[in-house]
Amino acid sequence: MGGDHAPKMVLKGANIALQRYPELRFIFFGNQELIEENLKRLKKLSEASTIVHTDTVITTDMKPSLALRRAKDSSMRLAINAVKNGEADCVISAGNTGALMAISQFVFRNLPGIDRPAMASFMPTRQGEVVMLDLGANIECQSKNLVQFSIMGSLFAQSILSITNPKIGLLNIGAEEGKGSEVLKETNKTLQNMELPGEYMGFIEGNDIHKGKMQVVVTDGFSGNIALKVTEGTASLISEFLKRSFIHSFFSRIGYFFARRSLHKLWFRLDPRRYNGAVMLGVDGIVVKSHGGTDALGFATAISVALDMVTDNYVEVLKGKFEAETSTGASDDTAEDQAQSSIETS
Amino acid sequence: MGGDHAPKMVLKGANIALQRYPELRFIFFGNQELIEENLKRLKKLSEASTIVHTDTVITTDMKPSLALRRAKDSSMRLAINAVKNGEADCVISAGNTGALMAISQFVFRNLPGIDRPAMASFMPTRQGEVVMLDLGANIECQSKNLVQFSIMGSLFAQSILSITNPKIGLLNIGAEEGKGSEVLKETNKTLQNMELPGEYMGFIEGNDIHKGKMQVVVTDGFSGNIALKVTEGTASLISEFLKRSFIHSFFSRIGYFFARRSLHKLWFRLDPRRYNGAVMLGVDGIVVKSHGGTDALGFATAISVALDMVTDNYVEVLKGKFEAETSTGASDDTAEDQAQSSIETS
Repeated sequence: MGGDHAPKMVLKGANIALQRYPELRFIFFGNQELIEENLKRLKKLSEASTIVHTDTVITTDMKPSLALRRAKDSSMRLAINAVKNGEADCVISAGNTGALMAISQFVFRNLPGIDRPAMASFMPTRQGEVVMLDLGANIECQSKNLVQFSIMGSLFAQSILSITNPKIGLLNIGAEEGKGSEVLKETNKTLQNMELPGEYMGFIEGNDIHKGKMQVVVTDGFSGNIALKVTEGTASLISEFLKRSFIHSFFSRIGYFFARRSLHKLWFRLDPRRYNGAVMLGVDGIVVKSHGGTDALGFATAISVALDMVTDNYVEVLKGKFEAETSTGASDDTAEDQAQSSIETS
Repeated sequence: MGGDHAPKMVLKGANIALQRYPELRFIFFGNQELIEENLKRLKKLSEASTIVHTDTVITTDMKPSLALRRAKDSSMRLAINAVKNGEADCVISAGNTGALMAISQFVFRNLPGIDRPAMASFMPTRQGEVVMLDLGANIECQSKNLVQFSIMGSLFAQSILSITNPKIGLLNIGAEEGKGSEVLKETNKTLQNMELPGEYMGFIEGNDIHKGKMQVVVTDGFSGNIALKVTEGTASLISEFLKRSFIHSFFSRIGYFFARRSLHKLWFRLDPRRYNGAVMLGVDGIVVKSHGGTDALGFATAISVALDMVTDNYVEVLKGKFEAETSTGASDDTAEDQAQSSIETS
């Protein structure tokens, strides 16, 4: 029921995903009548789906803390519970981000050895794609959080980008060793001296993220959120300028006519729907957040992100990595505290 | 002597600026022989210039603290001294950013009422331009710093963008009141309840910076640096993709042929040389930092930024604003401490 055009957009997205992966099965949580009405024309999807009815919906403006305490029969909560109970392998939602994080963290709990989960996503670069985390779950981070993000992000890149030895960078305002906050300097030293499921390359600056020299960019949730959104904003600015250029004169319209196929390839490469799906890493369950304003194609991308993680057994691999390599031990925070920690964000 | 192609690039840049503003006079600090050799073909500039010889140059990799203590006869230090002594109205350098900030802060001192200077620059948006600060001078900021940046940035926007009532936004990971760190929440409240040389609009997210709804974006130096560099990186990524699109096929080359004039307008709008010139605000002198890798055209932009500030009497206006409106009083830090505070950055 989450997102600007739910449930229609969600169902159409599931339908696209089903065409790509016919073995998928869906459980839709929400208003049964609405869902059934929209499923009428999607015969195959209808056959591959079950519906769990609920009238309670977490709205976009609901505070995560309230959503966590009150909305225990909401579509979002029931979907997360279904994964917890083993009825589903993963949950995908286009709803309230803060609520999704808080409820996921509360229901799934953090994996042993992980103090704070992080939101991760991927973006285009000159060569392939780059995974960035955290994107907003943790405004402020300690060094141990950033170290854990490096492991979580690297394993995610292995799964989603199919790269065996991803290169990891730590976002900073300069590439030299002495740059940045004490937390960053400490994290840099720790990462240099530990074994990682990837290759640590040192600091990376904002203008190097899209060069594609590294496949994992680690940062706190504030900077990560800014970096992700500035990328979106800049891309959108240039698209706008480009469109204005092509309608500018008679000749530029002719130019567009001839170049349009190649330009469509450019749009395709930059299409935000191809990068839709932010993942919550570090909890004992697979949770993918779709952009609320996306369309069916974007939602289908979010589904395939979840599918990749299920197929590669992401959670178990991450669990094994932390059991084998770190001696941090389980977090001292209670689950309620942990859930609280992400409530400030959305 | 600073920048990748100094002194040639600097002199050519000055020459472009002189063509635009024939009343300009220059003092060049550095190797006299090298400068004279490059001035030979620039007759008019030669007549409008004097040279102060020095062999000492602050290299790009020199630590700002060292540059401050040791390089007292460096071209950079002498140029800054010339402004301090009233021999020049402003200083423009393409050299070591950290050293430029540290020396400027030490020589000029902070203006009364300003605890920390900030680096500011401007960028293109859908409608006009936007000023952003801080860009890296202060990794961590207190609320009072961000409040001071709002005033400094707003007056800078008035001067450089010729807008009488600039709209000011505070960069955050969400637009709602409850979002972000305690420092941001406190700053938001203070800005809502004070008189500013502009209109405070509340929080702004990363993807809204380039929409042009606000003309001043205030943030700490870490996030500002990331936002600025991610803008550069994304623009460069898309330019690269666009170029590849146009050489992709025979038809796309024809398309380029017809659209090239309009596309050149696009490049012109996005040309980083048009936005070259980061300004150090909050000290008792006008200091403009040019990108080290820019060319003559970019350096000429940096000169015109400085010229705008001189013409509008930026420092005096800012001084007046702080004397009239704030009761913060002068900073308790000594000048040496203040200079130290910016040394970590570059």
